[in-house]
Formats: sequence, structure tokens, C-alpha cells
Amino acid sequence: MYDLAGADPAVRFSPYCWRVRMALAHKGLPVETIPWRFSDKSAISFSGQGAVPVIRDGQTVLHDSWAIADYLDAQYADRPALMDGSQGRALANFARHFSQAVFAPIAFKAVILDIYNVIDEGDRPYFRQSREARVGKTLEAFAIDEDEARAQMRPALAPLRALLQEQPFLNGDAPAFADYCLFGGFMWVRGVSSKKILAEADPVHAWRERMLDLFDGLGRKAPCSGA
Amino acid sequence: MYDLAGADPAVRFSPYCWRVRMALAHKGLPVETIPWRFSDKSAISFSGQGAVPVIRDGQTVLHDSWAIADYLDAQYADRPALMDGSQGRALANFARHFSQAVFAPIAFKAVILDIYNVIDEGDRPYFRQSREARVGKTLEAFAIDEDEARAQMRPALAPLRALLQEQPFLNGDAPAFADYCLFGGFMWVRGVSSKKILAEADPVHAWRERMLDLFDGLGRKAPCSGA
Repeated sequence: MYDLAGADPAVRFSPYCWRVRMALAHKGLPVETIPWRFSDKSAISFSGQGAVPVIRDGQTVLHDSWAIADYLDAQYADRPALMDGSQGRALANFARHFSQAVFAPIAFKAVILDIYNVIDEGDRPYFRQSREARVGKTLEAFAIDEDEARAQMRPALAPLRALLQEQPFLNGDAPAFADYCLFGGFMWVRGVSSKKILAEADPVHAWRERMLDLFDGLGRKAPCSGA
Repeated sequence: MYDLAGADPAVRFSPYCWRVRMALAHKGLPVETIPWRFSDKSAISFSGQGAVPVIRDGQTVLHDSWAIADYLDAQYADRPALMDGSQGRALANFARHFSQAVFAPIAFKAVILDIYNVIDEGDRPYFRQSREARVGKTLEAFAIDEDEARAQMRPALAPLRALLQEQPFLNGDAPAFADYCLFGGFMWVRGVSSKKILAEADPVHAWRERMLDLFDGLGRKAPCSGA
């Protein structure tokens, strides 16, 4: 699996790669990860596109975390399901869109300068130019501080918080792909930033702690700039 | 089933009752509904509490739309599932909390004066007093107009919109209880108000149209003040 890395190759911070890392652990499948940088387009050109995660499983090459999850459930159907039936798949899709439409825009403002600082020096001009063009501001003008991030995250995560007051995981009593879709976003923040975007008393914080502990602490043990 | 009614007993506008009406239709179970008003606490005291929906199925009396959905799936397991397995139940719970934490607070401001006008005159003093105490303002100061409602609803529904651009129903290819949980909120608005809280080009609007058509137009045919 090709996995986005920082200047320190041990720091892996792609939310989409983390979805797949967690999905592979859920299936009990071992994986070798290869650190990859934004500018290494040629290293993954065999996949027919330019973004990670990219996995190779025997002769099969796949990209896109959603397609990879579908593949893993189909190819390894005898192992625990990531998405159980059509309603389970719909739940993961809702969690994915909630992460992208609600969580990510706030988190992006909170960590954009941290990302800039953690990525390889060779990636910085590409990152600054592409992101400033996208947001229409300098990175510095676009960024928000920890207090503001927490203040914006609190109301935005209200439906998730209500859910997690009733059940330990998005998927119910046990975690599965819906949880990994959202957790990928939290690992992205944790990989690059020491900002605390959740209050410690928040039920979402308690869920994140449970997620960090899964699979023998896969998330918690991962080298990061955060806490 | 005891079902919240307006001054016109044909107008039924409880979001929780609509969840159950749709759930019963999904199961193919016939139902007789009994109009109920906020002040008729004694009529449902046999259920041990004071809110609708209340259903009686043979010797069984139940209240709370969520408990009723669980009962229907357990009691009528041979009929189409409302919540398919633990992940299907988690999806419905996420949809329920999304409806309550994201949709309802905006919708409530949009329709609060419409509700006041549609309910039975005898219910109005109770409604005004209890709601003004809850929101800390007069109903008139709390209310928002149609344009403001649509402006607030647009970004709030972003994750739902993204999901419904990929699949026709929250539950996937076919509707089930997650859809009914959210649709109940739209039937509440439609029952009492002519405000259009969605743009016609919004994929959420197209989903609402599909929902109104289900079960031979159960929602669309229901007497209402809306459109």
C-alpha cells in the first residue's frame, strides 16, 4: 500500500490511507506500506491515476478508499464485514459524507499550517500554490487557531455526539467501516497537529480514544505530531 | 395508533407519528389512526406516559417511534426489515439524530408560527407558553421566514445532499427506517406550513418527492397546509 508520508517518512497523515489501514486490520490482513509524497506521481502511475491510497493485492491494483473497502468485503467475504449488507454500506456512505462535508472543512482550517510544516520541503511549493488557489487566501489568512476550531467543531458534531451517547461506535456495538471513514479524519489531524479540536468531556473524544486503542493501538502507536 | 392532529382533525403533523405511519406501510400492516391533541393527556394515559405516537397491536401497547420500529421488526420479522442488522439499526439511529440535531432546529424556527395557527384553539395557550419558555423569546421573535429557512437548510443538509447524489435513498437503493426518520421531519413541515425550505434543484428535494410517492402516495395524499 502506498501511503502519504511527511518529511519524516514515519508520519502518515492521509485520512483516506487511514481508512484503508483500519479496514485491512479489521479484516486481519497484513500490509506493507510504502511512504509516498505528493510529488511522487510517477511512483503510482501503474494505478492509472495520481492519488493514494493505492494497494496491490497479488495481481490486483486498486485505488480509492471506498473502492478498496468494497473489494476487501467481496474478496475476503469470510472475514468480518466492513459493510454489512446494503444498509451497512449506506451507513458507511453517510459517515463518509458527514466526514467530508462537516468535519473536514473545519479540520482543514485548523491544520493547514501544520500540514505545511510537516510535509517534505519539496512538497511545500505545490501544497501552498494548490491550496491557496483553492481557498482564495494565503494559508496564514485561512487558518484558524485551536480555540476557534474547537468552537466550530462542537455544534457541527452534534448529531454524531448524540449517536455516540447511545452506542459506543457509529456502527453500533462494534466498529466497522463507517467508524474508519470518520476516524481517518481524526488521524489526519493527529498526524500533523498538536491542536486539540475536541473537549475532553465530549463523547466524540471518548469514541476517538476507543478508536485509537483498536487493533493493539494501531492509531495510537503511529508516529505523529499530535496528541 | 394515536396520531397528533390539528384543529382540522385530518391534518396530522407529528414527525414521530409519521415515522410510524411509514414504518407500518413498509411492513404492509393496516392501521386505524385516532386523532389526538396536545391537551388530551388522559386519552393515552393507558400507555403510561403523555406523548404520541402510541400504538395498540392486539394486547400490546407501545409508545416512542424508535421502540415501535424495534417491535415491528421483531414481531413481524417475516416482512421487509425496517433496520437490517446492527449496521442498519446504527444507520437509522444516525439519521434520527441528524434529523433531530441538524434538521429540526432550523425547521422549528421556520414553522413555529404556522404550528400555532394550525393547532386547535384549545391547544394554543399550552403551545405558546411551553415553547416560549423553551426558546426564551416570543414565538414571533423566534420565527424565521422562508428565505432564511432555505438559506440555513442548504449548508446544514450538505452531507445528506452528497449522499443522495450517489444513491436514491438514505438506506441505499430502497427506502427503510433511516429514510422514514428524516422524512417525518419533512411531513411535519408540510403538515403545517406552505414554506418551501428546499430549492427545487436540491437533490434532497428530489428525494422528498420520491418519499411522498411511496406506498401509493401516502405522504402526498395526506391533508396538509403545505405543498
